[in-house]
Amino acid sequence: MSDYSAVKAALRRQHIETPSWAFGNSGTRFKVFEQEGVPRDAYEKIADAATVHRFTGVAPSVAVHIPWDRVDDYSGLAKHAEDLGVRLGAVNPNVFQEDEYRLGSVCNPDPAVRKKAVAHLLECVDIMDAIGSRDLSVWLADGLNYPGQDSIADRQARLEEALAAVYERLGENQRMLLEYKFFEPAFYATDVPDWGTSYAHCVELGDKAQVLVDTGHHAPGTNIEFIVAFLLRKHRLGGFHFNSRFYADDDLMVGAADPYQLFRIMVEIVLGGGLDSASGVAFMLDQCHNIEPKIPALIRSVQNVQEATAKALLVDVDALRSAQRDGDVLGANGVLTDAFATDVRPLLAELREEMGLDPDPIAAYRRSGYAERIVAERVGGAAAGWGA
Amino acid sequence: MSDYSAVKAALRRQHIETPSWAFGNSGTRFKVFEQEGVPRDAYEKIADAATVHRFTGVAPSVAVHIPWDRVDDYSGLAKHAEDLGVRLGAVNPNVFQEDEYRLGSVCNPDPAVRKKAVAHLLECVDIMDAIGSRDLSVWLADGLNYPGQDSIADRQARLEEALAAVYERLGENQRMLLEYKFFEPAFYATDVPDWGTSYAHCVELGDKAQVLVDTGHHAPGTNIEFIVAFLLRKHRLGGFHFNSRFYADDDLMVGAADPYQLFRIMVEIVLGGGLDSASGVAFMLDQCHNIEPKIPALIRSVQNVQEATAKALLVDVDALRSAQRDGDVLGANGVLTDAFATDVRPLLAELREEMGLDPDPIAAYRRSGYAERIVAERVGGAAAGWGA
Amino acid sequence: MSDYSAVKAALRRQHIETPSWAFGNSGTRFKVFEQEGVPRDAYEKIADAATVHRFTGVAPSVAVHIPWDRVDDYSGLAKHAEDLGVRLGAVNPNVFQEDEYRLGSVCNPDPAVRKKAVAHLLECVDIMDAIGSRDLSVWLADGLNYPGQDSIADRQARLEEALAAVYERLGENQRMLLEYKFFEPAFYATDVPDWGTSYAHCVELGDKAQVLVDTGHHAPGTNIEFIVAFLLRKHRLGGFHFNSRFYADDDLMVGAADPYQLFRIMVEIVLGGGLDSASGVAFMLDQCHNIEPKIPALIRSVQNVQEATAKALLVDVDALRSAQRDGDVLGANGVLTDAFATDVRPLLAELREEMGLDPDPIAAYRRSGYAERIVAERVGGAAAGWGA
Amino acid sequence: MSDYSAVKAALRRQHIETPSWAFGNSGTRFKVFEQEGVPRDAYEKIADAATVHRFTGVAPSVAVHIPWDRVDDYSGLAKHAEDLGVRLGAVNPNVFQEDEYRLGSVCNPDPAVRKKAVAHLLECVDIMDAIGSRDLSVWLADGLNYPGQDSIADRQARLEEALAAVYERLGENQRMLLEYKFFEPAFYATDVPDWGTSYAHCVELGDKAQVLVDTGHHAPGTNIEFIVAFLLRKHRLGGFHFNSRFYADDDLMVGAADPYQLFRIMVEIVLGGGLDSASGVAFMLDQCHNIEPKIPALIRSVQNVQEATAKALLVDVDALRSAQRDGDVLGANGVLTDAFATDVRPLLAELREEMGLDPDPIAAYRRSGYAERIVAERVGGAAAGWGA
Repeated sequence: MSDYSAVKAALRRQHIETPSWAFGNSGTRFKVFEQEGVPRDAYEKIADAATVHRFTGVAPSVAVHIPWDRVDDYSGLAKHAEDLGVRLGAVNPNVFQEDEYRLGSVCNPDPAVRKKAVAHLLECVDIMDAIGSRDLSVWLADGLNYPGQDSIADRQARLEEALAAVYERLGENQRMLLEYKFFEPAFYATDVPDWGTSYAHCVELGDKAQVLVDTGHHAPGTNIEFIVAFLLRKHRLGGFHFNSRFYADDDLMVGAADPYQLFRIMVEIVLGGGLDSASGVAFMLDQCHNIEPKIPALIRSVQNVQEATAKALLVDVDALRSAQRDGDVLGANGVLTDAFATDVRPLLAELREEMGLDPDPIAAYRRSGYAERIVAERVGGAAAGWGA
Repeated sequence: MSDYSAVKAALRRQHIETPSWAFGNSGTRFKVFEQEGVPRDAYEKIADAATVHRFTGVAPSVAVHIPWDRVDDYSGLAKHAEDLGVRLGAVNPNVFQEDEYRLGSVCNPDPAVRKKAVAHLLECVDIMDAIGSRDLSVWLADGLNYPGQDSIADRQARLEEALAAVYERLGENQRMLLEYKFFEPAFYATDVPDWGTSYAHCVELGDKAQVLVDTGHHAPGTNIEFIVAFLLRKHRLGGFHFNSRFYADDDLMVGAADPYQLFRIMVEIVLGGGLDSASGVAFMLDQCHNIEPKIPALIRSVQNVQEATAKALLVDVDALRSAQRDGDVLGANGVLTDAFATDVRPLLAELREEMGLDPDPIAAYRRSGYAERIVAERVGGAAAGWGA
Repeated sequence: MSDYSAVKAALRRQHIETPSWAFGNSGTRFKVFEQEGVPRDAYEKIADAATVHRFTGVAPSVAVHIPWDRVDDYSGLAKHAEDLGVRLGAVNPNVFQEDEYRLGSVCNPDPAVRKKAVAHLLECVDIMDAIGSRDLSVWLADGLNYPGQDSIADRQARLEEALAAVYERLGENQRMLLEYKFFEPAFYATDVPDWGTSYAHCVELGDKAQVLVDTGHHAPGTNIEFIVAFLLRKHRLGGFHFNSRFYADDDLMVGAADPYQLFRIMVEIVLGGGLDSASGVAFMLDQCHNIEPKIPALIRSVQNVQEATAKALLVDVDALRSAQRDGDVLGANGVLTDAFATDVRPLLAELREEMGLDPDPIAAYRRSGYAERIVAERVGGAAAGWGA
Repeated sequence: MSDYSAVKAALRRQHIETPSWAFGNSGTRFKVFEQEGVPRDAYEKIADAATVHRFTGVAPSVAVHIPWDRVDDYSGLAKHAEDLGVRLGAVNPNVFQEDEYRLGSVCNPDPAVRKKAVAHLLECVDIMDAIGSRDLSVWLADGLNYPGQDSIADRQARLEEALAAVYERLGENQRMLLEYKFFEPAFYATDVPDWGTSYAHCVELGDKAQVLVDTGHHAPGTNIEFIVAFLLRKHRLGGFHFNSRFYADDDLMVGAADPYQLFRIMVEIVLGGGLDSASGVAFMLDQCHNIEPKIPALIRSVQNVQEATAKALLVDVDALRSAQRDGDVLGANGVLTDAFATDVRPLLAELREEMGLDPDPIAAYRRSGYAERIVAERVGGAAAGWGA
């Protein structure tokens, strides 16, 4: 634990990507509560993302969602980001919000719909080229609501074909991150429901296909750190969509529901080399701030990832390995719980000061007047939201 | 099993209420897929409900949702229903779709919001008076997304106070049905999360307060028929919101996910006297037909409840009781599975013919031209949906 | 539905393997209730299995569990089975009931324990040679109770190594079926927790490694038929351990908890060619009859699999495919529910009579006097149970 | 946070009761791993409990389980405890480990079995009289494995009758704590499955009947702190059986699976007055140390409860209430997470030193030689375990 400088160095290197869509309004199927000052277009979302980076220092990129962030000039958008001190990150296609997709996108029984969906995925690779993005984050809402509605096996075949077409199109330094999700919006069967399905497709596609773990997309009780450890070992962990949940895909702030789980995930990341930039593990947020203000919620989320990472870096690995070798159950577990019990807020405050940042990002944000400014300025026009 | 006439008589008496909102568009937080021909106002919803009754013969009432079904003249709406051969049923208040309700309705920390919510609940009792409705179906979306967000205990106190005010206002023959829900839209804590909470409040309120069981509102693995049996025994089962789910509150067609569970629920109803009109158990549907056509989905749902009820009525109660007394586990279970294995479709076809109906309601609906007619006629205006 | 002869032919070909251990006493961690007449050794278990076959006609093999069924002369045991009209089936190693396995078997941090475990697995292949068995059913209880207790990644490496050693030893016509389990007896992390883990190992091992699906070993809400369809398509479905559950690995009679789920699984089997003997899919029971008599419970279980299979065979595949192609959600679902609603008990009774069996196997068993005989004869000695 | 002396005073007052059975061997249905030095009778269990108290200073009582701790002379046992510096606490009847209880105890269809079970419960009140115990902890394993096996409603009637008979027998200062459990050992329906059932019975019985919350006995996702807050508000929270779980009733060390949940529970306790001795809330452990050494596991468990309580006591209640009133979601949540993030180990070390204890109880236990001594001395005889 004495090696704080190494811990701090690792924390400086860890970058956490914010999602453009989390700055817009979101909600449940029951109601989207509108907030004042939310962005009205991709440019304003990026400005908010840059604000999160300005106060945290470790969120230098922002993921985009197409068509929610569709613009005429993507290199202009990238330039806009750069001007604000950030860059565009992963590109997230959307093949679930047009009426044609009622029965699925790339798995749809209708070949015309599948073609349209694949075309959109390919368009997103074009956008990646334009903005210099490495990662295509593929989440498919495809699935069935009723038994018998469609052939599970045929849909896998269609999925395979579509993924292959997109994979083929990837450039040298580009990757496809295939996200899985237990359920929602499909309520009976989902076409990529679990890490096993994603992994199997990735292995068949090739090294540029990697599994994307959204921490909210699992069956109750699933041990996520096992999946993380397994995928890291197989060099198939593309990255995370971080958020937290008590029940389903609640999309709460990461670490808000079970900070010890987030810590355990980060322990596997640290032990498995996932913090090395060579690992290619992308740390991305994917959240919905339905009732809380969005920018401070994202700042808090970045801090939560940092706190979990800091604690994971404080694990006494030699003591852990030794206790594990000896079969000392309580001792080995105690090494982990000791690290978790440590209050890392002072360490992070120190790190921020060394980085020229305010030690308390949310307080600094509050004092900055940014919140008041966007409420005053962003008047008129339609607030961005899911689907807008 | 020979006593088919008694079975048929019981099936004739069982009325299943349709929900006006199920005829409008619905969806998930990701997308509401629009369908052609959906109603544009309360009058058209009631016309669709009347159509379901016309082909099933056992769905003579339709629940309304305020403000989704707000009209100027409620007795006019009731008259419209009667003219179409149905009547208005339960009144469902809505205290979750206005911006004030971001942090709750009757449990909100702000007394002004609570006052507004209670006023709406009271307004709904006024509407009940106007349309001659017996049941106020109270579902509250109140809850918390984050630990600490509000005081769980204080919210119970506010809930108690609001329910008492509404209970006080109920007329002689009116009831309050208090619905519970495990989660959604609140993701950390819900103010009426389970039957125990609802039951405790009802007992304190008085006999006109009853528990409403929505079959989709439980934790994974919950034994719903236990709850039904318990409440029936205590004369606190006000009724059902029927639907089915694989994961969360999926709102699929009742019986679509687990027909054996629906059967077991109906067995407890039959054994506990819940089919007797004196029991006051209301059988209501509460579903969302996101990807399938709504009217045939509701017809199918009515049929599913009937099939489960018919099978429950076929249980050989004497054999069951005898095997139970003898501790004959396989025998007692076999009595139930024998009834469930029976194909009751012929029996129901026969019943429908005796009632002057087509034995196959969906086929008859298809042939009727109603679907084509509403698609042609309902052009212009905004389709009804959640929130409209 | 007219093609009953093809349905019956398929049902004749479907063989369901009984597990020797289900004839012995079993229970929960709280109590093993002893029953009279339970077998005291492997020979008596096989006699009971032969009895199940005698009355059902489709249970011609019995799986053995080593060391619970350890004998000096395995070919003698095989001969005993043959004399009774059955044969020995899958061999199930046991690497969880010796004190050395407290922290795992093939994943144990101690190399000596791993060596012992692998030696036992290899011994089981020797036994397979001796009795002419095709399948080694590998279920590992390995896992962790506390975070940090051992390295998840190192344990995967050890698992890989052990499986490779055993795979290497398999004969030409032998297979390794790798079973997964969500949890229990490990309460924090299990080393083969899901189908993805099993599948990934099998793919790396080779074609003789196949996934074994125990229907009780999944997270709440898991769509098992998806897994079945996926594995069948990839030729990696080795077979089933059938049972049913409401909560965890309850090991109730297959079909007792959710007969519609069992039907849906069998629909995927039928549609994916899993009933063809070339598919190699093994239908095995793995149950615990804690409070009900064991032999009739197993007869009932065999019947439950048959009923689900018969209904799956009655699915009108042309109508299903056509509705699926047309995007007719209700129509496609209706094809399935129509098959499920059919009462197949008369068809199965007819089939049994054609096979020279009593149409009601449990009644015939009851009349046979076998139950009374074993109670009278099996006196003295220790009743077989888990661990004996 | 400055008021450390009040925090420490509250922590001194909080007593945590250890369970005699946790010192004996335990396991899963698959295997009980035997440990050296485990007690062979009630006297040795109490000696171990006294050891836990000696090093923690806050575990002055030990719950007994009848018949596992049956002795001829209960006042002698109480005297033995006193001599060792502890006292006997709650009495836990056992009506699930005799063959008569195969189909239940007080809910059994056979009146003779019910009578036997009630007699045992009454005998336990006699023992309470003899040892001066306040609490009868009633956990019933009663339930059903198969639908139809018995009448759910009739079983409730039998339960009501039995509880009334026992309640009647309670002395002035005695209480009945009625525990609920989601499932296990019953796999279809449990007769007291949730807090609602327990609460309803307690309310009908009277003030001396209170709900006992075992933290491992809930459906996945259940918000336990809601239940705690609800019951405290209604003066019906009798106490806890603390342990932790990832999946089912895993009975791991309390706080090991989700320390943030334990903290949230303790926050409700603190806010609701549950630490006041007048509240009557009993803090009891109920755990199984299957693979780890038992005494240090129990010491760790006591520490875990203390750490969670200390953090809960550090919550800035004024700031919390103020943020809640203002609807400041992030602020109110932040008050809680700030308290949780605090490292309270130094505070607890200080408290222990003020109490004349070693600041590190486990290290002190290790150095004490007690572990080695019991291994050396407890040779011969049968080790205590579940059922012995």
